[in-house]
Amino acid sequence: MENKLKELKTRLAEVSDLGAAGAVLGWDQATYMPPGGASARGRQMATLGSIAQAKFTDAAIGHLLDELEPWAAQQPADSDDAALIRKTRKDYDKQVKVSADWVSRANLHIAETYQAWTEARPANDFKSVQDALKVTLDLSREYADFFPGYEHIADPLIDGPDPGMKAASIRSVFSELRNELVPLVQAITSQKEADDSSLRKSYPEKKQLDFGIEVAKDYGYDFNRGRQDMTHHPFCTTFSITDVRITTRVQRKYLADALFSTLHEAGHAMYEQGVNMAYEATPLAGGVSSGVHESQSRTWENIVGRSRGFWEHYYPKLKAAFPTQLKGVGLDKFYRAINKVERSLIRTDADEVTYNLHVMLRFDLELQLLEGSLEIKDLPEAWHARYKSDLGIQAPSDVDGVLQDVHWYGGLIGGAFQGYTLGNIMSALFYDAALKAHPSIPGEISKGEFDTLHTWLRENIYQYGSKYEPDDLIQRVTGGPLRIAPYIKYLRTKYGELYKL
Amino acid sequence: MENKLKELKTRLAEVSDLGAAGAVLGWDQATYMPPGGASARGRQMATLGSIAQAKFTDAAIGHLLDELEPWAAQQPADSDDAALIRKTRKDYDKQVKVSADWVSRANLHIAETYQAWTEARPANDFKSVQDALKVTLDLSREYADFFPGYEHIADPLIDGPDPGMKAASIRSVFSELRNELVPLVQAITSQKEADDSSLRKSYPEKKQLDFGIEVAKDYGYDFNRGRQDMTHHPFCTTFSITDVRITTRVQRKYLADALFSTLHEAGHAMYEQGVNMAYEATPLAGGVSSGVHESQSRTWENIVGRSRGFWEHYYPKLKAAFPTQLKGVGLDKFYRAINKVERSLIRTDADEVTYNLHVMLRFDLELQLLEGSLEIKDLPEAWHARYKSDLGIQAPSDVDGVLQDVHWYGGLIGGAFQGYTLGNIMSALFYDAALKAHPSIPGEISKGEFDTLHTWLRENIYQYGSKYEPDDLIQRVTGGPLRIAPYIKYLRTKYGELYKL
Repeated sequence: MENKLKELKTRLAEVSDLGAAGAVLGWDQATYMPPGGASARGRQMATLGSIAQAKFTDAAIGHLLDELEPWAAQQPADSDDAALIRKTRKDYDKQVKVSADWVSRANLHIAETYQAWTEARPANDFKSVQDALKVTLDLSREYADFFPGYEHIADPLIDGPDPGMKAASIRSVFSELRNELVPLVQAITSQKEADDSSLRKSYPEKKQLDFGIEVAKDYGYDFNRGRQDMTHHPFCTTFSITDVRITTRVQRKYLADALFSTLHEAGHAMYEQGVNMAYEATPLAGGVSSGVHESQSRTWENIVGRSRGFWEHYYPKLKAAFPTQLKGVGLDKFYRAINKVERSLIRTDADEVTYNLHVMLRFDLELQLLEGSLEIKDLPEAWHARYKSDLGIQAPSDVDGVLQDVHWYGGLIGGAFQGYTLGNIMSALFYDAALKAHPSIPGEISKGEFDTLHTWLRENIYQYGSKYEPDDLIQRVTGGPLRIAPYIKYLRTKYGELYKL
Repeated sequence: MENKLKELKTRLAEVSDLGAAGAVLGWDQATYMPPGGASARGRQMATLGSIAQAKFTDAAIGHLLDELEPWAAQQPADSDDAALIRKTRKDYDKQVKVSADWVSRANLHIAETYQAWTEARPANDFKSVQDALKVTLDLSREYADFFPGYEHIADPLIDGPDPGMKAASIRSVFSELRNELVPLVQAITSQKEADDSSLRKSYPEKKQLDFGIEVAKDYGYDFNRGRQDMTHHPFCTTFSITDVRITTRVQRKYLADALFSTLHEAGHAMYEQGVNMAYEATPLAGGVSSGVHESQSRTWENIVGRSRGFWEHYYPKLKAAFPTQLKGVGLDKFYRAINKVERSLIRTDADEVTYNLHVMLRFDLELQLLEGSLEIKDLPEAWHARYKSDLGIQAPSDVDGVLQDVHWYGGLIGGAFQGYTLGNIMSALFYDAALKAHPSIPGEISKGEFDTLHTWLRENIYQYGSKYEPDDLIQRVTGGPLRIAPYIKYLRTKYGELYKL
């Protein structure tokens, strides 16, 4: 069995190496690649992708799994090897069930739709992509049907980014959350708007970046095993457990962009850097789901990075870096500015409180489309109606409406959005558990010390990589299922104080 | 046949894409990779290499070649498709003849020897790598023996970097060259040494780099399809015909390092960028040999970049960039400084005139080792003896002697060095042909105009990529075989004037 396990690991390492090479090519494409390199790069990434796919779905891997499973069943439930075989089996079955014909049709269609969207968006022309989106919806349903026996048609689509999670339970959690958030947003936005003009002065780019890097280092993002480069849309990417990189962008006239983007991506990166080294080059390396991943980026960006305690330590440093710009701006005013809540149209610009309303309405629209209770042609109106009911505003056009996000035009419909809000909910849930174990954490944060929190997260979450599915992980870490109470308490406390509710 | 050719090209593109991905990983390793990434990166590059090797030596490619060759034989001799099949057949046969067992032994041994050398060199301890080098020599002979019927045992080793070239003819050309160079070096070095202290003042790095980039752009290196990044040992690397990158390094206290390194690598890069786009992702893309490649880097670095005419145009610009440092340094003095000739111990620091003596003695030692007329244990002494006889100096230790270059410790013995001098010889040969076609070129260079030369090189050399083997290419471009006369004339004229010989 040892030899078979070794052979399986060798094959999986090959697939992992191809994936990592693809990630390096993608990183270069988004950071340094000269414009002329684009078309060859697309071909090269596609080649790596299809070789990796072919190697992973090789029947030899299926046979090895068949032979290893009876042995794995006798290992302790907690065994890494058993987890590896379980996770590999799930991924393998998923990939072999999907027909090669579907994969090639979907890849081609998505590439075309993405191209069409890049033209439709500036032209405010939803009609021009409507038919393509219908095909995307059909392809999404077809994908789900490769996995008969699902409870909800969205479940197989959600299972990719958030393994094991189901539309029904997410819907119920989201509905509970919306019932809390809508009145909270109403209460806040009926107050005087926070003044964030201090963030919109002229801040030299290099100093902004240096400040963000200093904080990321203090957090514990290891630059010996990572680095930060510039890009248009910030992301985190993993080449190995010992090489996890982040990217950012910087606006001279908006201090909050680069800084919080760096803290956000550093959160993702610390998760990836914290995985057990024994999982290197296996399917257990890497964060387990988009939700758990987002819980870590949001913990370090928001729960820590936008907290009053954090700024008690860092605001004097920030003022020292930007003495002219922040002259006369006290800590309270600055803290209010970086936590300004407003009803807005653009998800990616939204604050901590309203953000989830943007996400949950997209999730609901996805489910309705997949269920057939909403047609693509009616999507723009349904979008506007939900913004009206949930956020109390309406976009003047589809540019800031249904054409806003790339997700449905550069991928399938279903599973694209729930991770963002699941992440916010989980961030407070995990943080609450960390505080129960170490009540000293908030005090440490206000001294710029993050070791206790980082170590707790690494020991309880990061090290496991993809070993435990999200629901299982949540149960292990918090002793209960996914629940919104800690998140609601976090928002109520923080914004209750800020807005004297 | 068309379908078979199409299938061949699809398979070759896959191999090319894997190679390009490996090149991106190598570039990142040498430029941006954080230290922690090293070990995973080694594994990832090895994985890509062995997948590419397996895909290229797939029997299906052999069958396609078998089927296509009779058809190719009926195509015009100049046909691209016929050239593709000819070149692919040669590469394919070479790779399938070498046993997998040898490849894995050689890779392992070379990795270990390289590691040992990194320790032996600072310790001046040749003895510690002597046994490893004996094994390298055995492996090199074994490699040659996969190709029985060679004229000289070095021929199969030379055929990799310089296809079609043979030890006997190179030896004879080199012997002729040495007979010219030894007295020339003697004549020059018996004169007063040139003063290059003006190059060794403090030159801010950024300005040095900016100047080099401006010249490279003027040359015609297309930054829309390339870029320059920083590294330890400058190199040029190709990801596609539309993405060819160079790297450089910069010394604050030595103006000539970054500048001429940029011009050198830009020469390599313009060759790669100039290949016929129809060859993209086939074995015809990329320069044909180390010699022809080096001829282009040396043309743009030396024949153009160290010429008096070039500096008539650029020296005022350089003075404008560095007014304090170059105050009181006239064009003549500067021109002498960048063309200073001296007897030195280190190949990579050597000037245009002595450089080839460093190279040719290494080539001769390689042949003697392979022939068995020199033993590894006697290599340090043979090295010193040749420096004494050819350059009139002797290294105080093996650090600056036989331990100096990585080549024999990071690769095989045989074929490692000849390309450098072949390139110098060819640079003058090709340039001579360009001048015959366009006598206006030197005048244009002294106005900072390079279009005529660049276009001539592209049309006569670059566009063909690897279509014609070096000897064939030389015949086509110059109407005769490889010969040293233009190179000797170039050196005699230039250094005759500089040193009033």
